[in-house]
Amino acid sequence: MRRLAMDRAKRLLFGSFLSSSQSSLTPGPASSCFPFSPFSSEAPMSLYKFPPVTVETINPKVKRCEYAVRGEIVSHAQRLQQELQTKPGSHPFDEILYCNIGNPQALGQQPITFFREVLALCDYPALLDRDETHALFSSDAIARAWEILDLIPDRATGAYSHSQGIKGLREAIAVGIAERDGFPANADDIFLTDGASPAVHMMMQLLIRSEKDGILCPIPQYPLYSASIALHGGCLVPYYLDEGKGWGLEIFELKQQLAVARTQSITVRALVVINPGNPTGQVLSEENQKEIVEFCRKEGLVLLADEISRSMGYGGDDLPLISFQSVSKGYYGECGKRGGYMEVTGLSSDVKEQIYKVASVNLCSNISGQILSSLVMNPPKVGDESYESYMAEKDEILSSLARRAKALEDAFNSLEGVTCNKAEGAMYLFPRLHLPQKAIKAAEAAKTAPDAYYARRLLDATGIVVVPGSGFGQVPGTWHIRSTILPPEDKIPAIISRLKAFHEAFMDEFRDQGVA
Amino acid sequence: MRRLAMDRAKRLLFGSFLSSSQSSLTPGPASSCFPFSPFSSEAPMSLYKFPPVTVETINPKVKRCEYAVRGEIVSHAQRLQQELQTKPGSHPFDEILYCNIGNPQALGQQPITFFREVLALCDYPALLDRDETHALFSSDAIARAWEILDLIPDRATGAYSHSQGIKGLREAIAVGIAERDGFPANADDIFLTDGASPAVHMMMQLLIRSEKDGILCPIPQYPLYSASIALHGGCLVPYYLDEGKGWGLEIFELKQQLAVARTQSITVRALVVINPGNPTGQVLSEENQKEIVEFCRKEGLVLLADEISRSMGYGGDDLPLISFQSVSKGYYGECGKRGGYMEVTGLSSDVKEQIYKVASVNLCSNISGQILSSLVMNPPKVGDESYESYMAEKDEILSSLARRAKALEDAFNSLEGVTCNKAEGAMYLFPRLHLPQKAIKAAEAAKTAPDAYYARRLLDATGIVVVPGSGFGQVPGTWHIRSTILPPEDKIPAIISRLKAFHEAFMDEFRDQGVA
Repeated sequence: MRRLAMDRAKRLLFGSFLSSSQSSLTPGPASSCFPFSPFSSEAPMSLYKFPPVTVETINPKVKRCEYAVRGEIVSHAQRLQQELQTKPGSHPFDEILYCNIGNPQALGQQPITFFREVLALCDYPALLDRDETHALFSSDAIARAWEILDLIPDRATGAYSHSQGIKGLREAIAVGIAERDGFPANADDIFLTDGASPAVHMMMQLLIRSEKDGILCPIPQYPLYSASIALHGGCLVPYYLDEGKGWGLEIFELKQQLAVARTQSITVRALVVINPGNPTGQVLSEENQKEIVEFCRKEGLVLLADEISRSMGYGGDDLPLISFQSVSKGYYGECGKRGGYMEVTGLSSDVKEQIYKVASVNLCSNISGQILSSLVMNPPKVGDESYESYMAEKDEILSSLARRAKALEDAFNSLEGVTCNKAEGAMYLFPRLHLPQKAIKAAEAAKTAPDAYYARRLLDATGIVVVPGSGFGQVPGTWHIRSTILPPEDKIPAIISRLKAFHEAFMDEFRDQGVA
Repeated sequence: MRRLAMDRAKRLLFGSFLSSSQSSLTPGPASSCFPFSPFSSEAPMSLYKFPPVTVETINPKVKRCEYAVRGEIVSHAQRLQQELQTKPGSHPFDEILYCNIGNPQALGQQPITFFREVLALCDYPALLDRDETHALFSSDAIARAWEILDLIPDRATGAYSHSQGIKGLREAIAVGIAERDGFPANADDIFLTDGASPAVHMMMQLLIRSEKDGILCPIPQYPLYSASIALHGGCLVPYYLDEGKGWGLEIFELKQQLAVARTQSITVRALVVINPGNPTGQVLSEENQKEIVEFCRKEGLVLLADEISRSMGYGGDDLPLISFQSVSKGYYGECGKRGGYMEVTGLSSDVKEQIYKVASVNLCSNISGQILSSLVMNPPKVGDESYESYMAEKDEILSSLARRAKALEDAFNSLEGVTCNKAEGAMYLFPRLHLPQKAIKAAEAAKTAPDAYYARRLLDATGIVVVPGSGFGQVPGTWHIRSTILPPEDKIPAIISRLKAFHEAFMDEFRDQGVA
């Protein structure tokens, strides 16, 4: 009887409700189940309030998931910001400076004009029929909007698209990839997504079957990967980047950690490579990229690469390579548009059909994000009306970012007990903190990690929000913070002087046994 | 030893790489793992091609997931469409008519002008400083764009927002909900999402711990729910809508199926209610809604409701009620914008913090979709410049939909052996097909469900794309198709005559033993 019940439960689970099985129609005696139910109709009112869901009864994978970039320190910063509004002067600073997240336009960076012109015209195509429009929009933005609308069936920017995204936009993106990498790309390999996050989730969901499936992930790493692995119930197999060598990726370390995982009977399915590094900011050399590809090919791993190219001489058939791209990254920093794509190569067509099916469940990604993804891969070209202003906007953003990165990097390196690598290609710095024993003990007393303790003290003293290294992972016993380089350039000097004053006071407090 | 390995694997899994555990740093002898690996460096090249991932080695939950709305029949339709372009006249029709998906703007419906005006201005705010703009945009669209930009920190429409969406937009939506339902709503309960799908996934992920957790789901149902339950490894507990009573929801049936599930030791966690029905199109009476809420309250179930209101006299504390809203539904049909939200009431703050954490992993939903969600909940009001044109556009869409629904409903009911309920509140019809035995045998011979066989024959003969009832679930032994009512009004007569001609020929073929 019990066995039969199990079988029927399984048949239900396996979707037989779509078949002609009668099992689910057979009613059980209505009374028979209540003894097993904590919520019988006789229970007192008070029981009804929250019992259906408590933190103890949710999916434990959700509980396990961590995401420091918007964690406790950010919630505390938001509280402080409200206090500054309600009680000005209630803190030793007059504004919160969010250096916790790569969100350039939240810190005053202006969008690239050409991109926004085209998006506006595609949102309201009636503009294209009006004379006044030519006074308001550049001629190449108008031409590009027409081109894009002609790629969309019925010019319907308000319609669901193909599950992978509008075919014509994917073709334009494939052309852009080929021009960037000098390596052909295929529109059918491209899946347009609402930013990179859903693409990463889709691949983790596809690859992870149980906690015995492992994903090799850099440490430190952007917590999207650890969060997604946790949500899908897999095993994060860490490999450590070498801080002493500018956060270099050593193949020896990959082999070692793969071996450790296999001795633990973990089936390692994929290798995650983040390039440029996040939070570490380094860029992998082409030589290093080739070694990584060779390692995956030899070990039979899927390569999940954040903005890596296939230009190092391997064809799609040599190994499964999934590369993620997002309009949130790069000089344009269009985080709020949630545009992005993944390029899926080296997987068999039947596996790609499974990815297509999962993409179809969500119907499609947002069309504005799809259009923007095609624009960033095909910006104005020499001769276009917008070309010079576009290049000027782009160069100003990039050169300002370089100046801010250098200033903050030098500032961190000038601090007692702090060492900071260069931000070669990303908008982040990840300085290491060599903290006095007394500070580490103070953190233990406060039941928090030493770098979290430092970050909290920094926030309370200066309004500067950074993320503790413990949120990204780090070699045990080392401590870091991640800071973006994104605050407006005119605020950098003030940030640096506040940072220096705080750090000196912090070190004095914990170095000098007299103070406490 | 094996046990130790397991423990270390578990520690890895449970995220100890973020702690100071040394285990993951201990290298295993590099050789020791290779005997267990199918991909040793000695394996022949040919082995490298696809072994890392095959359909047999992906997550079985992904394999199990089904999504008929974009299934085989749609892929076949896309092939036919390409053949029509490359070889005109190669088929007995000159265009494909997509009645498979609720995608109004793909079938010629125009967007609401006011909404698009505001979106364009928010995408390219520089327009707001130009005189020409007043000639191109309505004064209330310009005023609304200013209002919205002032709700966004730094007016940065290109920045990530709060993980739940821009606070000011959520407050505007809460006001709109309160006006609609006559029941207060709270901005902190609202999570803005990229359409309704991610919200449904978030809740299934939160509630489903194993295949022993069940979700009560209507049959027929929109396959997003069955797909999401399958992807998260839960058990779909079906309850059948009563076709004989206009697809009514009978509480008796809910109790019966809950009892059956409990006898199978399934822990039923939630009840899904789709209102207006999809694919069935019916609207639940307020009386019926009250019964449903009472049932959930008594049985301790979470109520997952597609556009249900809290206006039937229950406060947020009476039961956990999650309602989903999307800009894809409703007269405006802005499917491509991927805007939507869920309103989460009756859950404890610590459970809501878990939902916030999961939302944070994806950072935020797209800002244009967030803005549009606030617009559809707060359209132009009496006295606004756009009010009359807005009402005219809205009324024209709704009255045309009503005419098309009636025409198609009558057409289906005029067919031999076909019965069709009214589309009270949705853009779908779900006619029942009483097929001859010979047709059912022909379907069996073709290894397909009878309604899938009928839909395929209909497509091949007329270019009309409908979804077989088997994709939504139906009482075993009954057969249906789902058709939207969305084709342009001027095409409806042609569709009806093609449909009638096909159906007569189909019945003749399978009724008359002479023909075959």
